[in-house]
Amino acid sequence: MTPEGNLLIGQQAVRGPGAAIHAINPTTGETLEPGYAAGSQAEVERACELAWTAFDTYRETPLETRAAFLEAIADEIEAIGDALTERGMAETGLPRARLEGERGRTCGQLRLFASVVRAGEWLDVRVDPALPERAPMPRPDLRQRHVALGPVAVFGASNFPLAFSVAGGDTASALAAGCPVIVKAHSAHPGTGELVGRAVQAAVAKCQLPEGVFSVLYGSGREVGQALVRDARIKAVGFTGSRGGGTALVHAAQSRREPIPVYAEMSSINPVFPLPAALKARGEEMAKAFVGSLNMGAGQFCTNPGLIIAEKGPALDGFIAAAGEALKESASQTMLTPGIHDAYTQGVEKLSRHGQVREVSRGKSGETPNQCQSALFVTSAADFLKDEVLQEEVFGASSLVIECADANEVKQIAEHLEGQLTVTLQMDDADLDAARTLLPTLERKAGRILVNGWPTGVEVCHAMVHGGPYPATSDSRTTSVGSAAIFRFLRPVCYQNLSDALLPEALKESNPLALRRLVDAKRES
Amino acid sequence: MTPEGNLLIGQQAVRGPGAAIHAINPTTGETLEPGYAAGSQAEVERACELAWTAFDTYRETPLETRAAFLEAIADEIEAIGDALTERGMAETGLPRARLEGERGRTCGQLRLFASVVRAGEWLDVRVDPALPERAPMPRPDLRQRHVALGPVAVFGASNFPLAFSVAGGDTASALAAGCPVIVKAHSAHPGTGELVGRAVQAAVAKCQLPEGVFSVLYGSGREVGQALVRDARIKAVGFTGSRGGGTALVHAAQSRREPIPVYAEMSSINPVFPLPAALKARGEEMAKAFVGSLNMGAGQFCTNPGLIIAEKGPALDGFIAAAGEALKESASQTMLTPGIHDAYTQGVEKLSRHGQVREVSRGKSGETPNQCQSALFVTSAADFLKDEVLQEEVFGASSLVIECADANEVKQIAEHLEGQLTVTLQMDDADLDAARTLLPTLERKAGRILVNGWPTGVEVCHAMVHGGPYPATSDSRTTSVGSAAIFRFLRPVCYQNLSDALLPEALKESNPLALRRLVDAKRES
Repeated sequence: MTPEGNLLIGQQAVRGPGAAIHAINPTTGETLEPGYAAGSQAEVERACELAWTAFDTYRETPLETRAAFLEAIADEIEAIGDALTERGMAETGLPRARLEGERGRTCGQLRLFASVVRAGEWLDVRVDPALPERAPMPRPDLRQRHVALGPVAVFGASNFPLAFSVAGGDTASALAAGCPVIVKAHSAHPGTGELVGRAVQAAVAKCQLPEGVFSVLYGSGREVGQALVRDARIKAVGFTGSRGGGTALVHAAQSRREPIPVYAEMSSINPVFPLPAALKARGEEMAKAFVGSLNMGAGQFCTNPGLIIAEKGPALDGFIAAAGEALKESASQTMLTPGIHDAYTQGVEKLSRHGQVREVSRGKSGETPNQCQSALFVTSAADFLKDEVLQEEVFGASSLVIECADANEVKQIAEHLEGQLTVTLQMDDADLDAARTLLPTLERKAGRILVNGWPTGVEVCHAMVHGGPYPATSDSRTTSVGSAAIFRFLRPVCYQNLSDALLPEALKESNPLALRRLVDAKRES
Repeated sequence: MTPEGNLLIGQQAVRGPGAAIHAINPTTGETLEPGYAAGSQAEVERACELAWTAFDTYRETPLETRAAFLEAIADEIEAIGDALTERGMAETGLPRARLEGERGRTCGQLRLFASVVRAGEWLDVRVDPALPERAPMPRPDLRQRHVALGPVAVFGASNFPLAFSVAGGDTASALAAGCPVIVKAHSAHPGTGELVGRAVQAAVAKCQLPEGVFSVLYGSGREVGQALVRDARIKAVGFTGSRGGGTALVHAAQSRREPIPVYAEMSSINPVFPLPAALKARGEEMAKAFVGSLNMGAGQFCTNPGLIIAEKGPALDGFIAAAGEALKESASQTMLTPGIHDAYTQGVEKLSRHGQVREVSRGKSGETPNQCQSALFVTSAADFLKDEVLQEEVFGASSLVIECADANEVKQIAEHLEGQLTVTLQMDDADLDAARTLLPTLERKAGRILVNGWPTGVEVCHAMVHGGPYPATSDSRTTSVGSAAIFRFLRPVCYQNLSDALLPEALKESNPLALRRLVDAKRES
C-alpha cells in the first residue's frame, strides 16, 4: 500500500482542488511525495452530506455489527504491515519501536471499544414501568436509552500519528457510540493518515455499512476545519492539539446557530510534587526517572512532566543536580515538525533569558535538523506566582523546577495551577499527611493523580481519565482515552408509553439484548 | 414563618444594599410586602467565598450524611406548612392544589436524590488492577470515581416556584453531587423563595454542614446573575427560563478565563403528531384532551403542546373544529406575572395578525388582571416552512395547527423543527408504519417521545429525560429532571497507584461502601 495523495470521501478517493500539502521528513528536511491537494467547502459539503445520510442507519446497527466493524478496522490497519510504520517514521521522525507500539495501542483501543459496544452498558437503559393505579396520577411507562449525537468531526493530533489521529481514540469512541466520523487529518503526517483512512474505508465496505460512516479530509490553515465545525450536520467535535487551535474550534462551535460540544485536549504541564521524605530518601533515583519521562518521545507527550514543585533545601538541591547531570547526557531527538521544533526553541529561549529563571543544564545538541535539545530550569515559588508566562506549556523536553519555602507554599502553588491532565506525587510513607493535605487541591486540578510514577504513558482501559479542568481540556466532564470516552458522543432519550412494536431493541420489554437495566430503581444483575 | 425580605448568605439573613424588589400578586395587581433589597457584587463575593470554603468538606461528606441532608431539606419544607402555599398562591396566581402538588413533587425529588446518593452508582467506580507481569509494560493500578465539579449557580424559574426554584431540581441534583449551591431566586416569587431558602438553611444547620453549602441571592436585571456566573469559584450553572436569558448566561460562562458548563432549559414548542388512523378514529376525543393539556397551568409549562402537525383532510378539520369549540369554553386563568401576560398577549396578537395564519378560536377572556385567554391558530406546512417566526415559543395557552399535504410533508416539517423537550405521537395500530418512519427524526429532535399522551406532566424518576437538542436546552447530553441529572455536576478522576491509605473511601480495595464497581472490565453484582 502506497500513499496516493487523495482525500477519502465515503468510498471514493478524491483529488482536492486546493494547493498541495507535503509532509516533511523532520530527520532529513526532505519533502515527501505525494502532495495532498487541500479540500474545499465542496468536499466538506460532500462528506457531511454522506455522513448525515448514513447517520440514522449507522446509529441503529446491531451492537454486534458495530463491534465487528471496529475489529475489522483494527485488522485492516494491521494488514497494512510495515508500509504504515515506514511512512510514519518518514513523516514524524519517531522511531520504529514507538510506532509499532502505537499501532498496537491503536488497534487495542479499537478492540476495547468493540467489547464496550457489545456489553451495552453505554446504552444506560432505565425502565420505570407504568403504575396505572397510582393516585393521584398514574405513572406512564418510561424507558430511557442513550442515542448517538450525530456526525462527529475529528481533528488528528501531530504527536500520535496513529493513536490520536485518523483511527485514534476520538474516531474509535465516536464510531462506537454510533456516530459517523469525518477526520480532518493532520498535515504533518498525511500519508500515514491516508493509509489508515483506506483501512477504515475497507472495513466500511467489508461490513457493508453506508459509505458516509467515514471520510478523511486534508487542508492547510483553518479553512477546512472551520467549515467542518460550522456545518449544521456536524454534532460534536474531537480535537487534540494546541490551546489556540482548540479555543478557535470551541468559538466556532459556540457561534453556530445550534452550538455543539467540542472535546478539545489542549494544554497541560503535568506538575510533579516530590514530597520531603521521598525526596530525601531517593532524590537521585527520582531525578533519573524524571529525566527519562521528560525525554520520552522528545518530550512531545501531552503528559510530559513540565513542572517539579518541592520544598527547597539540600534534598531538592541534590535532585536538581542529579537531574541536571542526567539531562546533560540526554541524546537529542528529532521533533515531529519544523514548526514544533521552532516553537520549542523559542519557548526554551524565553525561559533561558527570563530574569527570574536559572538554567540548570541542557541536553546534547543534535547535528541533524529539528533536534530537541532537552532543558531544565529552576525558579522560585514567588516568581512563579508573579508571572503567568511561567505556567505556559513548552511543548518538548523542557521542565521547570519550582523551589518553595515550605509545605504551605507548595500548597499555594498547587492552588495557583491551571487545570491539568495529570498531577503526580512522589512520596514515601512518611509523606502521607503531606499527600493528604494536597490531595483535595489536586483533585480539583487534574483528571489523573499518580503516586510514585511518571505521567507519560496513558493506559487504555476502563478506569483511565485523560482529561481535566480547563485549559487541559475544554470539557472536564469526560475523558478522551479509555472506555468512558464513548459517553462524549451520546445523549439520553426517554420513551413514554411506546408499544413494544415501536420501541427500539434495547428497550423492549423482553430485553432481547440482555442488557443490565435499571428497572424500577433496581439494578438487574 | 413569614417572609422577611432578606438575602440568605450561608447561615446569615442579610439585607441587600440595592433597590427593593417586590412581588406582585398577579390576580389582583397588588404589590406584596416585604421588599427584597437586591444584592450587589459584595454579596455575590461573600456567598462565593463561603461556597468555595465549604466545597472540599461538603463534597467528601459520607453518602449517608448527604442523603440525610437532602431528606432534612424535604422535611423542613413540609414543616413550613400552609404559609408556603399561601405565599406561593399570592406571588404566582397558581391555585392551591397545584402548589400543594408541586410541593409534594419537590420534596419527592429531594428524597429521590437522597436514595440516588446512597446507592452510589453515580460514583461510577472503575478499577483496573495492576498487572506487574504484563509485557512489554506492566499496568499500574488505576481507579476512577466521579467528583463534584464545584459550587453551582442555580437560577430559579418563574413557572415552578417550588420544583424548579430555590430547592428545585437543579439545587437537589447539585447538592446530591456534592456541589454547594448559590441560588439566584426568581424576582416573581421572592417570598416563596425565602421561605424555602430558610428551610434549606435550617437543614444545613441541623446536619452540621459548613454554612457555605447554600445561599440565596436576589437581584433585578442581570447584574447579580452575571456577577455570579463570572465568579471564578462557580464551576457550573443551572437555569430554567427564556432563550434570551439562557443564551446570555452561556455567553458569560464561555467568556470566562475558565469556561464552565451551563445547563439552560430554554425553549420548546412540543410538537404533537396526530397520525391518520388515530385522527380519524378519535379526533374529537383527542381534541378535548389536547385542549386540557394546552390550558394546564394557563399554558405556562415548558412542555406545553404549542404545535399540532397532521395531514389535512376531514379528520383534521374535525379535530380543529372540536378543539376550537373546547377552547371557546376554556375559562381564563391568571398568568404568573404581568410581564409574562404582556409577552403572551403580544405573541398571540402577532399570530392573529399574521397573513398566513388563521385564528380558529379564543378562550374566554378574564375580568381580573393578567388573565390568559387561550388561543388556537392554523397555518399550512408551506407557510410554516417559510417563516421562522412561526416556530417561536409563545409562552402560554396558545397553539398552532400545521396542515400538511401528505405524510412526506409531515416528515419534512419534523425535519425542519428545532430541538424540543418533547415530541408526541397520537397513533393507533394502523399508524405503526407511519410512526416508524417518523421515529428516527423525532429521536434527533427531542429528549422525550410520547405516544398517546400529552407532554405536560413530567414524572420525576430514573428514566425521565427533561432536556433535548438546542434550543430546548443548551446541552442535550443531560436531563434536568430525574435521577440522571446528578451527572451534570460531576467529573471523573483517575487515581494511579495510590495506596489504600490515600485512596478515597469509594476506591479502597475492600470496597467499604459496597459499591457496584467495574473491576477489570467485569461488573460486580
